[in-house]
Amino acid sequence: MEKDRILALERAALDKWKEGDVTGFLELAADDISYFDPSLTSRLEGKEAMTKHLMAAHKTFTIPRYEIINPQVRIEGNMAVLHFNLQNYDDKDSPASRWNSSEIYVLRDGRWQLWHSHWSVVKKQK
Amino acid sequence: MEKDRILALERAALDKWKEGDVTGFLELAADDISYFDPSLTSRLEGKEAMTKHLMAAHKTFTIPRYEIINPQVRIEGNMAVLHFNLQNYDDKDSPASRWNSSEIYVLRDGRWQLWHSHWSVVKKQK
Repeated sequence: MEKDRILALERAALDKWKEGDVTGFLELAADDISYFDPSLTSRLEGKEAMTKHLMAAHKTFTIPRYEIINPQVRIEGNMAVLHFNLQNYDDKDSPASRWNSSEIYVLRDGRWQLWHSHWSVVKKQK
Repeated sequence: MEKDRILALERAALDKWKEGDVTGFLELAADDISYFDPSLTSRLEGKEAMTKHLMAAHKTFTIPRYEIINPQVRIEGNMAVLHFNLQNYDDKDSPASRWNSSEIYVLRDGRWQLWHSHWSVVKKQK
């Protein structure tokens, strides 16, 4: 199912990410991707800018385990929206950072590419 | 142009929001809306939950002025994505809170409805 394919793409990028490898997301990125994350003061525009931004963190971290919570996918023609919470775990398998994620994919040249990506940190849980 | 229509809907909701009136966004919301904001620990699901969440803040604040920065809209069939930075200003017209926003609309019953909404706070600018 096409929805599973979108989720599998995201999961493959996260599987690299947990090893500190940012290239999975860069391979997904469309040339005209735009990107929000908590370390930025404005939306970042374009794959070149995203590459510079993510490569600064390449291989500087690892995430022992992550969990995708309640993913939802909606596909309309050549555009797909995926959103979920991401729970990361530390090396004692305790909950660490938790994220909100909204990912917009577009189908181009037979390949789903990430056109817009919004990551934000969830406030500390009590 | 349909893109302008999407932006006009968002602007109308924000024009109410700046008066502390949360009902503009509630009127836009689809029954199955999902919603991320910085005060939540997980994605909020459905218009009823969103209504409860937003009404708690109804008429408790005002925003003297806001600015939508670099809005982009992409429409594919019955789905539209709008994303932008939002700059709020205080009563001295100095920059106050700044936001990342990604809004996903779906066209149902001839009306664009908000299906997914992701708001996050931008880190302090230097």
